[in-house]
Amino acid sequence: MRTDTFGIIGGDKRQLATANAIRIDGYNVLVSCFEKIGTVENLQPLEDTILRSDIVIFPLPLTKDGETLNTPFSDRKIVMNEEFAKLFRGKKVFCPTKEKLMKTSRQWQDIQVYDFLDREEMQICNAIPTAEGAIEIAIREYPGTVNGSRCLITGYGRIGKVMAQMLKGLGADVYVSARRKESLAWIKLNGYNAIEHDRIINSGEFDIIFNTVPSLILDSKIMAKIAVNALIIDLASLPGGVDFESAGRMGIKTIHALSLPGKVAPKTSGEIIKNTIFNILEEELM
Amino acid sequence: MRTDTFGIIGGDKRQLATANAIRIDGYNVLVSCFEKIGTVENLQPLEDTILRSDIVIFPLPLTKDGETLNTPFSDRKIVMNEEFAKLFRGKKVFCPTKEKLMKTSRQWQDIQVYDFLDREEMQICNAIPTAEGAIEIAIREYPGTVNGSRCLITGYGRIGKVMAQMLKGLGADVYVSARRKESLAWIKLNGYNAIEHDRIINSGEFDIIFNTVPSLILDSKIMAKIAVNALIIDLASLPGGVDFESAGRMGIKTIHALSLPGKVAPKTSGEIIKNTIFNILEEELM
Amino acid sequence: MRTDTFGIIGGDKRQLATANAIRIDGYNVLVSCFEKIGTVENLQPLEDTILRSDIVIFPLPLTKDGETLNTPFSDRKIVMNEEFAKLFRGKKVFCPTKEKLMKTSRQWQDIQVYDFLDREEMQICNAIPTAEGAIEIAIREYPGTVNGSRCLITGYGRIGKVMAQMLKGLGADVYVSARRKESLAWIKLNGYNAIEHDRIINSGEFDIIFNTVPSLILDSKIMAKIAVNALIIDLASLPGGVDFESAGRMGIKTIHALSLPGKVAPKTSGEIIKNTIFNILEEELM
Amino acid sequence: MRTDTFGIIGGDKRQLATANAIRIDGYNVLVSCFEKIGTVENLQPLEDTILRSDIVIFPLPLTKDGETLNTPFSDRKIVMNEEFAKLFRGKKVFCPTKEKLMKTSRQWQDIQVYDFLDREEMQICNAIPTAEGAIEIAIREYPGTVNGSRCLITGYGRIGKVMAQMLKGLGADVYVSARRKESLAWIKLNGYNAIEHDRIINSGEFDIIFNTVPSLILDSKIMAKIAVNALIIDLASLPGGVDFESAGRMGIKTIHALSLPGKVAPKTSGEIIKNTIFNILEEELM
Repeated sequence: MRTDTFGIIGGDKRQLATANAIRIDGYNVLVSCFEKIGTVENLQPLEDTILRSDIVIFPLPLTKDGETLNTPFSDRKIVMNEEFAKLFRGKKVFCPTKEKLMKTSRQWQDIQVYDFLDREEMQICNAIPTAEGAIEIAIREYPGTVNGSRCLITGYGRIGKVMAQMLKGLGADVYVSARRKESLAWIKLNGYNAIEHDRIINSGEFDIIFNTVPSLILDSKIMAKIAVNALIIDLASLPGGVDFESAGRMGIKTIHALSLPGKVAPKTSGEIIKNTIFNILEEELM
Repeated sequence: MRTDTFGIIGGDKRQLATANAIRIDGYNVLVSCFEKIGTVENLQPLEDTILRSDIVIFPLPLTKDGETLNTPFSDRKIVMNEEFAKLFRGKKVFCPTKEKLMKTSRQWQDIQVYDFLDREEMQICNAIPTAEGAIEIAIREYPGTVNGSRCLITGYGRIGKVMAQMLKGLGADVYVSARRKESLAWIKLNGYNAIEHDRIINSGEFDIIFNTVPSLILDSKIMAKIAVNALIIDLASLPGGVDFESAGRMGIKTIHALSLPGKVAPKTSGEIIKNTIFNILEEELM
Repeated sequence: MRTDTFGIIGGDKRQLATANAIRIDGYNVLVSCFEKIGTVENLQPLEDTILRSDIVIFPLPLTKDGETLNTPFSDRKIVMNEEFAKLFRGKKVFCPTKEKLMKTSRQWQDIQVYDFLDREEMQICNAIPTAEGAIEIAIREYPGTVNGSRCLITGYGRIGKVMAQMLKGLGADVYVSARRKESLAWIKLNGYNAIEHDRIINSGEFDIIFNTVPSLILDSKIMAKIAVNALIIDLASLPGGVDFESAGRMGIKTIHALSLPGKVAPKTSGEIIKNTIFNILEEELM
Repeated sequence: MRTDTFGIIGGDKRQLATANAIRIDGYNVLVSCFEKIGTVENLQPLEDTILRSDIVIFPLPLTKDGETLNTPFSDRKIVMNEEFAKLFRGKKVFCPTKEKLMKTSRQWQDIQVYDFLDREEMQICNAIPTAEGAIEIAIREYPGTVNGSRCLITGYGRIGKVMAQMLKGLGADVYVSARRKESLAWIKLNGYNAIEHDRIINSGEFDIIFNTVPSLILDSKIMAKIAVNALIIDLASLPGGVDFESAGRMGIKTIHALSLPGKVAPKTSGEIIKNTIFNILEEELM
């Protein structure tokens, strides 16, 4: 496999970090659509990168407008259409949100396309930079220390688990809410205070609230009881889990923090993408 | 004691937080030298505050030029001279760096002056916002995640201990250097990697280095061996423990982070000041 | 529900603890088949207990010979047959391994029988006394300290997770092996060393090995590489995951530790059984 | 230094572990007074060991009766008198409680005698096997799980610190009592509940109490308030810190646990003794 050439097309600094991580393993890596950044190793014209690569990696997110590839560090608009797709015949293509790519052309059905974002290990690893980013915000924005503060995390999925662990590591008083009896048992067992989802409203006032659930959890009624003096950091993807309008009216400070991994830790994020892609390639060979 | 009136004169937001913390305990608190901030509870002319207070609290730091009181939120210059000192006869005065105040007038010798900064519990508690501030910088500035990074803390005093604990809580790979055999034993026992001070140079490359020792630890020779790709955060008071010039020439990113508690956690810092002052008052009564 | 009467029939000290936990909640509890223990609150003849109870709780394990109820603290043999089953008509019956009970008589099909052992929260909570029991053995039998020792846990299910957490809490150097990429990602993220199952043989020598996988993991070939000086504690149910014979020949100390919860923490185990039963009753009402 | 020969005379299994640890470093080690144990490497007659050794290590404890050397695995009585002392002229002698040895003969004043027990790093390292031993007892004797139990540790010295850390690692709810404001600040900062020494009586009931203070802390009045249902483990040296008689009358289970390191972890204890002795030798050379 060492003879394969990788092509990185578009995206943000995470993709450059992905390129570096692959290079360190001894592969040839070509990069395109980063003209705005001064010094990029092996930066090539888009056509060359496509032509010479065996394996191509598309950016995260794939597209922001649904039509063109997401290339924030390039002025070139690359429309994802029939012509574009044809260029990738015979190659292996890695992308996030595969279903979006598939819709842009029927050609993709004859091409080996792999989704690296829906892999469990990618999601788990991504929880780390997300949680660290949230903690950075909490330290910066909360007027007291996180140590000793009363923190609520809603939801005990991947991000909730990592958040709880790190907040406890900083010495916060950690509460986690969840629906399932099983999750509540794990929360207790891992040393946090468990709150049944339906009883959040009775759980007292919090200093900092981290929402990880992508549905309206923090409505005005609940916020009036538990969040009047709190800082709320919403980590759920749009539209999030907070009634931001009510929060504004109540004078509650809210921050909707999105895409933290790329912002906080581009290097680590690139390594995570690389590892996930290599795991997929390895399984292919088996 | 509930009938005592407290006067807060000058300083930054920490002092307002101190005022609040004392008020919550049920005391009357007057505040002066905060005209630049819009809404300050019970803001009074300086003369009134001094006259009506039984206990006066001076700012942290006490002075920046050695002559006038440190009042960043006021345009008024308050020279600390004979006249000034006389105003405090018969009152209890709390200040940091007491020796600086004493030098400004002989009058102070007849006044009850207490240093709240040299109290052990104040120093210990202050280590928390300092460490959180350092972690906030590390998450923000280091391109990878702190989780999984190889971190060195030089020194195992108050700040070193809290830093080590929090970094481990975030999942970093923590190394601590110290001189004394005793400290090295504690470092190991608390679950960190111990490095003898004299062998730092052989300890391999680090991702993030936190210096807590106020003497030149990180000279160019050592940095060339362990810090080439590192982020260095210096927490030691001026002039710090890093050869910043050499670091600059070597392209090593350094941050000299001072006065973190007031910046990161004014509310907590105010509570710490208040608790320390009340501990002193309580011991007085015994 | 407060008016219901509970009947506890047979079992070990856990069942007495279950009885106590239910009593504390304000219910009437009758107990049978504990004649050999001197002082048992509200000990009744078996027939009375059955007759007067609305809800009956059978022992854990249900039976040791497959025919009679498990009543170690009674000389009476209670055969689980047609006659026996008939006595429970109209009552709610809680038992472990429900399928074993169902086989003893068709009568059970017309009776409300609930399995409290296959509940997720019961299994999770039971992991705690199991892990503590294993740690107690490790401290007692391993000639060094657990702190600082190199420990391997095979498997990252419920018991593996709790074991890893507690061993790390004691300061051990914790390695966990697992098969799935997802589990390996979590192991790393939780701060342990992850070992791919197929590469256990290359992971170096361990001081203490805790097996939680119920299939032959530690065969003679693997033990020769990683366990020559190790203490092996097998927590998997019979026949366990260790080639005990080979281990014996190689002079490796092995301990097959079964039913730890009842031995180590009867009080906690009783509370877990009670909580699980009450969760089931509550869900019934909804 | 590699050419030095070490002589280990008397003591328990820790001393054999010390011998092994020194051998692993490449030195010649002679052992005496272990005839009762079947297989001891390089077991020699006492006279030979003394004659041929450059460095001699005496047992821990040095003596049980104040007159003869502590040799539990030998039938020979070795009186520590003038004659005995003379045999060690020109050698380096390591022992615990040096003042006891010095009293047995004036000869010792002309011999290089080092106390390895009063070294700080020895005391710190010894806290680990002591704490593990206490935890082993707690798991075994307390009818619930340590996880989730309400534990009190009296005193925040070396053993208190390690106990607190390990109990928290097991998931206990940890309270620590101390006298000094400074200690109380550290207790809070390390994530435990701090109790002022004088207010122990008001701190509620505990499940398990670990005493580390060598003066009467747990008198009948205090026990009546906080220990009625508790297991008390006393780790303080004789006479300990518990009113055992009152405890007995009140039906409180107490365990006075002494010399845990040698019992729980002879191997680790031997390594600690070896490391301490080598630290002393190294400092000698500097």
